[in-house]
Formats: sequence, C-alpha cells, structure tokens
Amino acid sequence: MFIYMLFCIFLFMAVQERVVYLDGDGIPRYWYNILPDLPEPLPPPLDPETGEPVSPEKLAVLFPRELIRQEVSEERFIPIPEEVREVYRLWRPTPLIRAVRLEKFLGTPARIYFKYDGVSPPGSHKPNTAVAQAYYNAREGVERLTTETGAGQWGSALSFACHLFGLNCRVFMVRVSYEQKPFRKVLMRLWGADVIPSPSRVTPIGSRILEEDPENPGSLGIAISEAIYEAVSNENTKYSLGSVLNHVLIHQTVMGLEAKEQFKLVEDYPDIIIGAVGGGSSFSGLFWPFYYDKVSGRAEKDVSFLAVEPKACPTLTKGIYAYDYGDTARLTPLLKMYTLGHNFIPPPIHAGGLRYHGDAPTLCLLVRKGVVNAVAYDQIEVFEAAKLFFQTEGILPAPESAHAVKAAIDKAIECKRRGEEKTILFSLSGHGYFDMKAYQDFIEGRLEPFAYPEDKIRENIETLLSKKLLFR
Amino acid sequence: MFIYMLFCIFLFMAVQERVVYLDGDGIPRYWYNILPDLPEPLPPPLDPETGEPVSPEKLAVLFPRELIRQEVSEERFIPIPEEVREVYRLWRPTPLIRAVRLEKFLGTPARIYFKYDGVSPPGSHKPNTAVAQAYYNAREGVERLTTETGAGQWGSALSFACHLFGLNCRVFMVRVSYEQKPFRKVLMRLWGADVIPSPSRVTPIGSRILEEDPENPGSLGIAISEAIYEAVSNENTKYSLGSVLNHVLIHQTVMGLEAKEQFKLVEDYPDIIIGAVGGGSSFSGLFWPFYYDKVSGRAEKDVSFLAVEPKACPTLTKGIYAYDYGDTARLTPLLKMYTLGHNFIPPPIHAGGLRYHGDAPTLCLLVRKGVVNAVAYDQIEVFEAAKLFFQTEGILPAPESAHAVKAAIDKAIECKRRGEEKTILFSLSGHGYFDMKAYQDFIEGRLEPFAYPEDKIRENIETLLSKKLLFR
Repeated sequence: MFIYMLFCIFLFMAVQERVVYLDGDGIPRYWYNILPDLPEPLPPPLDPETGEPVSPEKLAVLFPRELIRQEVSEERFIPIPEEVREVYRLWRPTPLIRAVRLEKFLGTPARIYFKYDGVSPPGSHKPNTAVAQAYYNAREGVERLTTETGAGQWGSALSFACHLFGLNCRVFMVRVSYEQKPFRKVLMRLWGADVIPSPSRVTPIGSRILEEDPENPGSLGIAISEAIYEAVSNENTKYSLGSVLNHVLIHQTVMGLEAKEQFKLVEDYPDIIIGAVGGGSSFSGLFWPFYYDKVSGRAEKDVSFLAVEPKACPTLTKGIYAYDYGDTARLTPLLKMYTLGHNFIPPPIHAGGLRYHGDAPTLCLLVRKGVVNAVAYDQIEVFEAAKLFFQTEGILPAPESAHAVKAAIDKAIECKRRGEEKTILFSLSGHGYFDMKAYQDFIEGRLEPFAYPEDKIRENIETLLSKKLLFR
Repeated sequence: MFIYMLFCIFLFMAVQERVVYLDGDGIPRYWYNILPDLPEPLPPPLDPETGEPVSPEKLAVLFPRELIRQEVSEERFIPIPEEVREVYRLWRPTPLIRAVRLEKFLGTPARIYFKYDGVSPPGSHKPNTAVAQAYYNAREGVERLTTETGAGQWGSALSFACHLFGLNCRVFMVRVSYEQKPFRKVLMRLWGADVIPSPSRVTPIGSRILEEDPENPGSLGIAISEAIYEAVSNENTKYSLGSVLNHVLIHQTVMGLEAKEQFKLVEDYPDIIIGAVGGGSSFSGLFWPFYYDKVSGRAEKDVSFLAVEPKACPTLTKGIYAYDYGDTARLTPLLKMYTLGHNFIPPPIHAGGLRYHGDAPTLCLLVRKGVVNAVAYDQIEVFEAAKLFFQTEGILPAPESAHAVKAAIDKAIECKRRGEEKTILFSLSGHGYFDMKAYQDFIEGRLEPFAYPEDKIRENIETLLSKKLLFR
C-alpha cells in the first residue's frame, strides 16, 4: 500500500508548472476567420425555394448587421471590441493545463495539454460567442434575444451575456430537459432570463403541437421554430444561435489564439489537436488558429486535427456530404454539410450537445478535403475515459468534452506503443458539475452504448435523397 | 438600454488584473500554528469521566501519531511534506480575485478581494486538510479511513485524498442527504469511496437505531458514532475529522499564507478579514497568518477579523462559552467552546456545513478575548447577497461561503457611507454547483429565514447546565 502511495507521489514529481496562465493582456485583440484560408470556397447556404444562394438581407430579420457581415466576411482578422474583451476578462485567458498525472498514469512519452474553458461563469466555451452576439445586438438597438436550448448549456451562456448588456432574454427549453434537468434553468433565472418549456402556448407553433398532444416532450427542432417565430414576430427582437454558423466559430477562436501564446511560454507546439464535435464550434475555435499557422507556413510542426463524435450521432464518420436543412421543421436555408438527415433522431445519450444531425459547413469542408480527420466512440468508453481523467487530473469533464478526453488518451497510448514523444492538445470545453445524473447512471451501470446502426443511417439518407429532401 | 450597456462596460474599465496568481513555487512550505501565539493558553480537552485533560495516547486509537503531535504542538511553523505540496499543486496556489464588478456595482471606495478555494477537485477548501490527513495515515501504515458527512463536502474531499494515497475510505452519509442530495455521493464513488447511508446495518449502533425506527433519517451525531465505531473496531483503520480540531485548522493555513504573498504582489493589505464559520476551519485558515503578522508586529495595518454565522445556528453570537461535548451522542472529550448545547438541532438551512452546535476551541478563545468579532445573518439575506455576487462576479458561492459574501457586501456599503478606502478580504471557500436545489428554492420563494429564537437557546443551555451536561 505504501508502495502505491510512493507511486502516486512519483506521479507528481519533476514538474514545476502544470498550469500555463496568461495575464489579462493575453486576451486576443482579433478573432481569426478561416474563410479566406479554406482550401476551396465554402459552398454557400441555399434558399430552398429558389435553389439560389441566400442573400445576406434575408438574414437581417434574425441577426444584427454586424453578425451577418462577419458570417460572409473574407477578412482574416476581425477586431474584438474592447467592450467584449472587458467581459472576457471575467474568466479569460483560460488556463492551458498539462495533464501530468494522466501522462504518468498512462506511462506515455506524449505530452498531453488541455485548454480548459469550463472556468467561465456558465461553465463552458459558449459565452465566447454569446457575449459577442449580445454586444452587437445591444449596439444595434436590439432589446431582446430569443434562443433554444436542450440541456441548457447554450441557454445559460446567452442568459449570462444578455444580463451583462441589459438585454431581455427568452429561452425555449426542450420540455423534457426543463423538467428533468432543472439546474441550468436555475442559472438562467438567476441571470434574469425568461425560461419557457417548449412546446409552449406562447407561440402558435407550440400551441398547435400541444393541442394535438398535450404531453409532447419537445425537441430541439420545435424549440428552434418557437424561438425563430418569436424573433420574427416581435419588435426589436432577434434570434441567437450557439454553433454551426461562421460568425459563431469565429468568436470561439479566442481559445486557439490564447493557446498558441501559452505554447510559446512553455516552448512547445502541438502535433495533434483534438476536439469533440456537436455543431463544431468548440473544436474549430481551438484548431483554426493552428490551421492558419499551417497554411501560412508558420507552423512549427505538421500539426494534424482530429474531430471526435458519438457513435450515437456519427455525422462526420457515417453521414453524407450534401445540402440539408439545419432544423427538423425545414425552416432554415440549406447548408452543405455532413448530415444524417434533418429528420434524424439520435438516441438519448448524455452528451446532449453532440446530438445534432449535421455540422458546421466549414468543418465539413475541411473533413471532405482530408484536412481534419474524424473518429467516433460510444458513450460507455467515453465515460470510462472521463472517470480516469477525473481521478488523475481532478476535473470532471462535461459528457461532450469527455469525447475529446477519450481520443486524447487513445492517442497517448498509441504514442507509448510507438515510442513517440508527441504533443497532444485537446479542448476541455466544459465541466460536468451540472451533468451528475449522467455520471450517476454511469457508475450505477445504467448507461447503454447507443451505437447507431449503419444500415439504418444509409436507409434514411437514401429515402431523403429519393424524396428530394437532401441534395448532393 | 444602450446607456445601461455602457454602464455595464464601465464596470470593467480601469482595471488590468482581476486575478492574482502565484506560480507553483508559491505553495507554502510551512503551515502556521496559532497555539504559541494565542493570547492565553488554550483550555485543554477534558476526559468526561475524570474531568482531567485527555492524554494524547487516548487519541491514538482514532488518529495517527503525527496528527496527535500536531494537535498539541507549540511549534509555530510546521513543515508541509513535499508529497502533500505535490498534491496541492493540482489546484494550488488558488487565485486571489479582486471583485471589481461587485465594487463598481456597490459604488464603494473599498477594495474587495476574495480567496477562492472552490477551484479544488472536490470544490471546496476541505482537501487542504484531507490530503494531509490521508498522507500521514498512509505513512503510518493505516489502510482505511472512516468519516461522516452531511451534504457531502467533507466526504468528497476525504474520498479524493484517500484515492490519491491508495487508502480505502468509508463515508457514513446522513441518510436524508444520501437520498436527497445524490450528486456529491457520485463524486465520492468516482474516487472509489464506499458511501453508506447512516444509520446503517454495518454497525451495532446503526442497527439498534434502525430496529427502533426503520425510517430514521439520520443525523451528523449518529454518523459520527458509526464512523468512530468502525475505526475503533477494525484493524489498520482510523477516523478523520474535517474541522474543529487544531491540526485541521493548521492545514488550512495554506490559504492565508498564499493570500499574504498575493497581497504583496498587488501592494495591498487587508483591513478586515471575513469568513463563514461552521466549525471554523476555512475562516481560521485564512486569518491565522494575518493574526501572526499582527501579534508579531509585522502587520502593515491594524487588521480586524469577522466571523459570520447563520441566525439558525448562532453559536458565537448567542452561545455560551463552556465545556461541551463535540457530538450529540457524547462520545468525544469535552471541548471549551461557544456552544448551543450538544443536543441542539438547528433548522434545516441549506448551508449544511454551518449547522454545528459548537466551534473550534481556538476560534472561541479568540472571540472570547475580543480578537475576533462575530455577526449572524438569516439565509434569505445570504442568498440575496450570493445572487448579486453571481451576477457581478460570475461565480456561484456555496451557501456556506455566501455568508462571508453577505458580510463583505455590508462592510463595503459601510465604507461607502463613511468614505473609507478599506481593503476587505473574504474567504470564498467553495462553489455552489452542487447546491442548485438551494438556489432553486431561493428563486422560487421557498426559503424560510430560520432565525432561531434566543429564549429557546437560553432555555436549552440552562437545562443542560442544571443537568451537568454542560460545564462553565
């Protein structure tokens, strides 16, 4: 037993600094925009009625001018308003942490670093864009934002941002989550947001659904429809989205830009960058700035990029690269992406943020071009990895982020087998302290792996193609 | 509305650094022990059977030798073993944060700093001593620790520490919390601890209680009895306590020692130090090192100390300074402290960690001597303060720590009224992310203030005195 103790102590030795901090001045002054550096032009969003690219003006009913400008901007560096940087200062720069005890436990020669954005007030990377979006809306005279949320991570980030800039905020929360996961709802209310279970009686869309089925548990698709309806039909009200779109991913690049500075301080550079992918914003925010290094000949190494997704919703690994709707109700423009079909209903895995049927079009293009690789895991192996990470590093990952933890561990084990001293960087985008029910199910053996059968995915895609609801 | 936005932005301006970090070398090499610097000798614990001071040997069945040595040590500085410092490195040094946005919101000329120990893996200051205790036990060949826990903050800290040093850990958790607050139980199990609802069938004490009342909800008193019974009646098993005792408070001084170094970096020094008091360990850990400055003539200012407690359990403000038992079942030695009587059952306030009938004898002596002042608040005003802190600073305080937040806000408002530019330091000993039920009750208007009637307290104390169960 004492031997075990000595072994544990040995795990800590020989390292002075685990955590790389930057001071407040380390908050970037520009976001990075990947659009001018993509290997080929991004296929534009299409209007389903005309088949033509959607004009920016059509989006003006939903988003403020500056965000639409950023959405299509070819500017490589977009200045971060000083007002947004001042808010970032509440939790940014976030730490870059070397997972020393995990490395020692695995006995790997690899160096494992993670960028930890769970230190933000809502506990994830989401406020990086929520704050920017609330700022631009407030600056353009918008008084109220609407959005949808599943488990509540995005909803709580937007509530926080709206509170800071004096905006009213209405969050349509999927009813089943509203009832079963009350705690992020409490956060939203502490920040003054108005949280409504969806389907609701405050929109005709919700009312119609409730008339047919008063017990309807809701879905992200319905909640999006209600949030968009509210924005479109009210004065001074706009809609806000937490992932997928270019401007959202641009705001997230503060993570990668900080990480680059932090790597300079420790005189290291990643060989591989890993992130979990739901819509793709946390992963893109981390790897884009390193991608820029690579395409501009500034990279110290031939860095590679790995997206991680759940086998329950394997968009990048099993989806088709095609034009599809962004939502179940087919209200959005068509986006070119890897998709399982907009009608795809993923199994109820605990990583609620990874249950989206598509992905950000920029990320999909990079996967298509072979710049980004993708891998999928089932949730049991993901929670096993999260447990090991918690036991060695003392931080409980959000179930979404735990997918990146699993991939990083697998890469580190591969390095051990091959004797390679690689530097691994992954995104720990959020903590899991509001996901304890998931961990309880895990330790009590109630989790199912939920790998989605490949033939069923194929079948669904073929059907949508034949009905012309999906376009190559 | 845009005016409000500008106002919010203004809150952030003019400050470069909110957070004062120390690097890994900033972890102290010595704990500070107040015993040699107390204004008069500490009244010793008494054996209830003989009325004589308890001999250290009598404690050897419960605690390892080194902890008993520290309990009575007159050494001013006790070296922190390198192995313990290496574990501290996982989350220490913890940040000292200036609450800039709270200051601006209050419009106070005071500077408000807080030492934030919620960044530890279990989310509170408790592992500062849990790690040291597990280390000494492991070094002396102990293989298993037992303890009790209410809501689970101490239980999760000891589970974490035992995991690191390869010790088995059994936590007796008050049954009503075990059933109603499952999430800290999940943390304990992830760290491999054995968590048992108390009263249990694994001890004769618990079995007897369950035979009489199978639905008994349990209490901290019963859980202590079960944990002590297990330690005494098993080979290589010891017991561990999370507050009150001298050695526990000594380990907590890492907080105050770090804070002193951090104040040097910002060229400031506190005028007043504030902390919530349950047993007294988090507050003592913060203020002791500044008390040392004061008594040794090293203090830059005439710093004062303020203990904060709930009106539901007002030991320091309404208790009697007398010899009393440490537990309900009268198994412990008699301790000289401010007490409400060992049979006192506080109302079910959400700050479970502040529901102890007594306090650390060292703290009580300092209150008796007028070195430390005390104030009490009801839980509604405490949650109001916590909400304001969350909205301005973005960290949700544990209900216990929120008592210190409330007092700090009141002091800052007093500074505004008097035009005094004082420096306020308070202990934010833990985060509230596992206490969301409490915040839900608060925002939904279900909290009661629970101020305990003074005449009932007097009556109980008089009865105990007359029955010779309490000794002046």
